[in-house]
Amino acid sequence: MPDTHALPPTHGRFDLRRVGIEGIRKPIHVLRAGRDIVLSTEFSVAVDLPASRKGSDLSRNAEILAEITERTSQHPVGSLEAACSQIARELLVRHPSASESQVVASAEYFLRQGIAPGRESYEDFRLLAESRASRANGSVRIVRSIGAEGVGMTACPCAMESCRELLVREFPELAEPRWKDLPMISHNQRNRTRLELEAPEGVDIEADDLLAAIASAQSSPTFAILKRDEEAQVVLNAHRRPRFVEDVLRELLAGLPARFPHLPDEVEVRAETVSEESIHKYDVRASHRTTLGELRRATAL
Amino acid sequence: MPDTHALPPTHGRFDLRRVGIEGIRKPIHVLRAGRDIVLSTEFSVAVDLPASRKGSDLSRNAEILAEITERTSQHPVGSLEAACSQIARELLVRHPSASESQVVASAEYFLRQGIAPGRESYEDFRLLAESRASRANGSVRIVRSIGAEGVGMTACPCAMESCRELLVREFPELAEPRWKDLPMISHNQRNRTRLELEAPEGVDIEADDLLAAIASAQSSPTFAILKRDEEAQVVLNAHRRPRFVEDVLRELLAGLPARFPHLPDEVEVRAETVSEESIHKYDVRASHRTTLGELRRATAL
Amino acid sequence: MPDTHALPPTHGRFDLRRVGIEGIRKPIHVLRAGRDIVLSTEFSVAVDLPASRKGSDLSRNAEILAEITERTSQHPVGSLEAACSQIARELLVRHPSASESQVVASAEYFLRQGIAPGRESYEDFRLLAESRASRANGSVRIVRSIGAEGVGMTACPCAMESCRELLVREFPELAEPRWKDLPMISHNQRNRTRLELEAPEGVDIEADDLLAAIASAQSSPTFAILKRDEEAQVVLNAHRRPRFVEDVLRELLAGLPARFPHLPDEVEVRAETVSEESIHKYDVRASHRTTLGELRRATAL
Amino acid sequence: MPDTHALPPTHGRFDLRRVGIEGIRKPIHVLRAGRDIVLSTEFSVAVDLPASRKGSDLSRNAEILAEITERTSQHPVGSLEAACSQIARELLVRHPSASESQVVASAEYFLRQGIAPGRESYEDFRLLAESRASRANGSVRIVRSIGAEGVGMTACPCAMESCRELLVREFPELAEPRWKDLPMISHNQRNRTRLELEAPEGVDIEADDLLAAIASAQSSPTFAILKRDEEAQVVLNAHRRPRFVEDVLRELLAGLPARFPHLPDEVEVRAETVSEESIHKYDVRASHRTTLGELRRATAL
Repeated sequence: MPDTHALPPTHGRFDLRRVGIEGIRKPIHVLRAGRDIVLSTEFSVAVDLPASRKGSDLSRNAEILAEITERTSQHPVGSLEAACSQIARELLVRHPSASESQVVASAEYFLRQGIAPGRESYEDFRLLAESRASRANGSVRIVRSIGAEGVGMTACPCAMESCRELLVREFPELAEPRWKDLPMISHNQRNRTRLELEAPEGVDIEADDLLAAIASAQSSPTFAILKRDEEAQVVLNAHRRPRFVEDVLRELLAGLPARFPHLPDEVEVRAETVSEESIHKYDVRASHRTTLGELRRATAL
Repeated sequence: MPDTHALPPTHGRFDLRRVGIEGIRKPIHVLRAGRDIVLSTEFSVAVDLPASRKGSDLSRNAEILAEITERTSQHPVGSLEAACSQIARELLVRHPSASESQVVASAEYFLRQGIAPGRESYEDFRLLAESRASRANGSVRIVRSIGAEGVGMTACPCAMESCRELLVREFPELAEPRWKDLPMISHNQRNRTRLELEAPEGVDIEADDLLAAIASAQSSPTFAILKRDEEAQVVLNAHRRPRFVEDVLRELLAGLPARFPHLPDEVEVRAETVSEESIHKYDVRASHRTTLGELRRATAL
Repeated sequence: MPDTHALPPTHGRFDLRRVGIEGIRKPIHVLRAGRDIVLSTEFSVAVDLPASRKGSDLSRNAEILAEITERTSQHPVGSLEAACSQIARELLVRHPSASESQVVASAEYFLRQGIAPGRESYEDFRLLAESRASRANGSVRIVRSIGAEGVGMTACPCAMESCRELLVREFPELAEPRWKDLPMISHNQRNRTRLELEAPEGVDIEADDLLAAIASAQSSPTFAILKRDEEAQVVLNAHRRPRFVEDVLRELLAGLPARFPHLPDEVEVRAETVSEESIHKYDVRASHRTTLGELRRATAL
Repeated sequence: MPDTHALPPTHGRFDLRRVGIEGIRKPIHVLRAGRDIVLSTEFSVAVDLPASRKGSDLSRNAEILAEITERTSQHPVGSLEAACSQIARELLVRHPSASESQVVASAEYFLRQGIAPGRESYEDFRLLAESRASRANGSVRIVRSIGAEGVGMTACPCAMESCRELLVREFPELAEPRWKDLPMISHNQRNRTRLELEAPEGVDIEADDLLAAIASAQSSPTFAILKRDEEAQVVLNAHRRPRFVEDVLRELLAGLPARFPHLPDEVEVRAETVSEESIHKYDVRASHRTTLGELRRATAL
C-alpha cells in the first residue's frame, strides 16, 4: 500500500502544531483505594507534524490508545493521568518525526457521598487529565495536569442583603441585632467548578482532594438523596455561606496552600467556576490561572 | 442522469412513515405587530415513502424550503406556522406519491421585556411550529401546532416550609401569626417551560400569548437587566409564589380556558416544564397532554 | 416536617400524566456473557400524579433508583431493561397514589470488534431501555422496550450512478459490461441507526442482536483501528453496498423476522436512521414504527 | 441598597483574571454590503477583578451589552468585531477598578451561495469576534480577533491510493497511464474549519474573505440545493482534490499572504480544522497558531 502520509506536503512546507484524533471513547481500569473501577473516558490524542511530512498517520494514535487502555483491564493504572502519560510517551516512540505529543482525557467519576452517614449514594463528578510529552536532549519530558469538576450550589450574598433591606421595610424588627443571624431569602443555583493542577511527573495529586477543595468552596455541596429535613438543611447551609462566583474562586484558590503543602511552588493552577443564575437566563463565570507559589505569597500576607 | 430514487426498493417492499432532512437552518421574515423581524430558524422537512419507491428524492425538500423561506424576504409571512404550512402543502405537490408531509420549525425569538418601564432589554425565548399535511379525498388537510418556550424561575414550596420549621427552632417568634408572611429561604432555580397548541388551519394563536401564559405560571419571570433593588424584588416575588413543577404545569394549563376563550374544544394541548434543581445535580420534569375541552371541564368543577 | 406534597393542588385539580426526575446518572452492574460489566447510565424516572395531590414527592424516585442500582454491585442484573423494570415496579409501591410509572435508561456500551481477527478494539455503542408499569386489577403490568444505537457508514447509491454517468463522458470504456463492477466514487458519511423493540415482560431480546442487525443494514460498520489496506477494504465494502437511509431502514426492518423468529407478532418495532451527509450541511433521517407481525406479513409477500 | 460587591474580599485578597457573564444572546444589526442584516449573537462579557473588591458588579456588563446592541437597531455597526470593541471599551469606563476587559461573540451567518448561477440559497456559517481592551498610560488599547467557521467536505487522499491499489488487482488496466485521472473511491466527510486573525484596531478584515479562504482549502464546499448532476459534480470535485486535515490546514494558511497582502506581519493567525471521519466513529483535528509574518517567510521559500 502506498504511504501517502510520508510524502512531502503538497500545500505549504511548514510545521503544524497539532494533528490528532478526538472524541474517541474507551473504558479504562483505574485502581482507587484498592478498588478496580472502570472509567468511561473520552480522549483526544495528538502530535505535532514536521514540515517534511504530508500526513501524521493517525492510525498509530488509535492503535496506541487501544493497546494502553486495554492493557488496564489486566493491570489497572494508578490514575487517569498515569494512563495519559503512558500514551503520550508511546506517541513519541511511534511518531519518530514528532517532537511533542498531547493526550487529554475526561471521564465520568462516581463518588459515594451523602448528607449524613447512612444516606450516601453515587454522585457524579468529572475527572480531567492531560499529559504533554516533549523530546529534550535525547530523553522525554512529561508535564501532566490533573483536574476535577464538581457541581454544587451557591446562594448570592448581594441579593440576600438587598432582600433583607426590602423586608425590613415590612418587618422593622429584622433590623434588630436579635435577627442578624436569620438567613434571608436570596437567589441560589447550580454551580459548576473546575480545578486543574499542572505538575511535572513524580508529583502526585489525588483527584478526590481536588473535589473536596471544590465542594468546600461552594455555598453547599448537593446530593441526590435528601429527605425533607435534609433538604432544608442544605438550603440553610447554603444561605449561611452565601457566595459570589468570585468568592467561590478565591476560597478555592486560597485554600490550596494548606491542602497541598507537599507540592512545589512551580505547580500551575487553573480554576474556573460557573453559576447558572436562577434570576437570569445567562450564566456567570469567574476564572483564574496562577501558580501555587503565587498563592502561597498572596495568602501569607 | 439515472433516477435511482424512482426504482423499486431493493431491501423490503413496504411503506416508511417518514423520510426527510433535518438540522437545516434558514432565515425567515415574519411580520409581527407591523414589524418585519428575521427569525433564524432550524427546520426538519419530511414526507412518507410508499412501498413502490426506493428513495424519497430529498433534493425537493431542500428546494421547497429555500424557495418559500427566501420569498419571505420580499413578502414576510404572518407567522412561523404559516410558513410551515406553505412548505407542508408544497411538499405534497412535488412528492406526488407521498400521502403525508411534516414540517417542524424552531426559532430563537427576542422580546423586549423588563422588570419596570424604562428597564427593558431583549430577552430570548423560543418559537416552535409544526405543520402536518395529508391528502384526503382529493384535497389537502393541514394540522398545525403553535408553541413557545420560556425560561423563568421557581422557588420550592416544600423546602420553604421545611426551612420555616427548622428556623422556628432557632427563632420561636417565627411561629407567631405576625411572621406568617415573612418569606422563608428555599431553593430556587431556572425553570424552562414549553407550551404547544395543535389546531386545524384557520384557528389563529399568538405565540406572545403562549409566552405570557408561561411567564405567569412560573414563580417569577427573569430578566437580563436588574439593579440591586430589582434583583431583590424578583427574589421576593419568586418566594411569595413558590411553585413545584407540578404547580407550574397545572397553573399553566388551568389558565388556558380563560386566556383562549375563542379556541374550540378540540385544540390539543401539550405542555412540559423542567426545573434545573439547585439542590440536586439532576432536573425535575412534569409534562401533560390534553385538550382545551378537557381543561374547560376540569376547571369548571 | 410539613408534607407539602400531600396537600391538595393549589393551581387546578386534575391529573398530570408524568412527573419525575431526569438526567440522573448512576453506575449499574450488568452480567453479560458471564462477565460483570459496569454501565455508566443516565436515567429518567417518573410517575403520573392524581388530581388529589399537589406534589409527587420525587425524593422517593431518587431513593429507589439509588437502592436498585447500588444493589447491582453485589448482584448484577441480567440487563439494563431488567433494572428498569425493577425500578418501575418499585415506583408503584412507594407512590401508592400513582397508577403508572416510566423508567428510561441510556448507557454507553463498549463492544470489542475489529475488521479482522486480532485487530479488535473497543467500539462504542449505546444501549437504550424503557419500562412502563401500570396497575391493572390489583396486579402490575410491565411493558419494556429494549434498544440499541450504532454508528456505521453509508455510501449514496444515487450519487454513485450519477458519477458513473459523468465519468463515462471522460472514459467511455466505463460503459462496457467489463467495468460494471468497478465501484464508482460517491459521497459517504457517518450513519447513526437506532432500533427499539417493545415487548411484555418475559420476552427476552439481546441488545447485541440489535447491534448486529443495525451493522448489517448499513453500507459498512466502522472501526477505530484500521491499517491502510483495511481502510481501503472498508471503503470498498461500503461502495459495494451503497445505501440511502431508506435502504438502511428497510433492510434493518426486513431482516427482523428472520433474526427474531421466537418473538411474538405483537412486538412493537421502532427504528430510525440518520446520515450526516458529507455533501450537505444538514442531516437526512428516515424513521418507521410497526409491529413484528406487520413485518412478517410485508416480507412474506 | 447595600453594595456587597464593593466590600473587600472575604475569601482571599488577590486579583482574579476574569469575571463575567456568558451565554447571553442578543440580536445585533450589522451593515454588510449596504444591507442591514440582523445577527443572532451569543456573547460573553468579562473584566478582571482587583484584589480590593469582593465582587465585580456584573449587572453593568448586562446593561452595557443591552445598550450597545440595541443602539445598532437605529445605527447598524460595520461589523461584529466593531460592536465587541465598543462593548470592551465601555466596560473599562464603567468598571473603573478593572484593567482589562474581554468580549467574545459568536453569530450565525447566512450567505447566499450555490453550485451555479441561479442555484443559490442560504448556506449557514459562523462569525466569531473577540475584543480585549486594556488600560495603558491613561489610554485604552484594543486588540481584536476576527474569525469565521465554515462546513465543507474532504475526501481522503490516502484511502484513495489504497483503494486504487486494491482495485488494480481486480482491474489491472487501472495501472495504465490512461486511467491515472480516473478518480478512485475514498472515504469523504464533513469538514469544519475555523480561521481567526488577531490584529490591533484599524486593521480591517472582511469575514467573507475568511470564509472564501476556508472554502478554497477544503476538498469541496457543500450546498443545500443540488440536482443529481450537480451532486455528482461536487463528489467529483472533492475526489479530484483529496485532502487530509493537514492539507486543508496548510493550504488555508499558505494562501493567507496572497489573500491579505495589506495586513501587517504582526497579525496573529489561529486556524483549526475537524473532519468527521466517515470510516471511524471519532473525529480528526489539526490546528496551528502563527503570525502572518511567519507565513510569509515560510511560503516565500
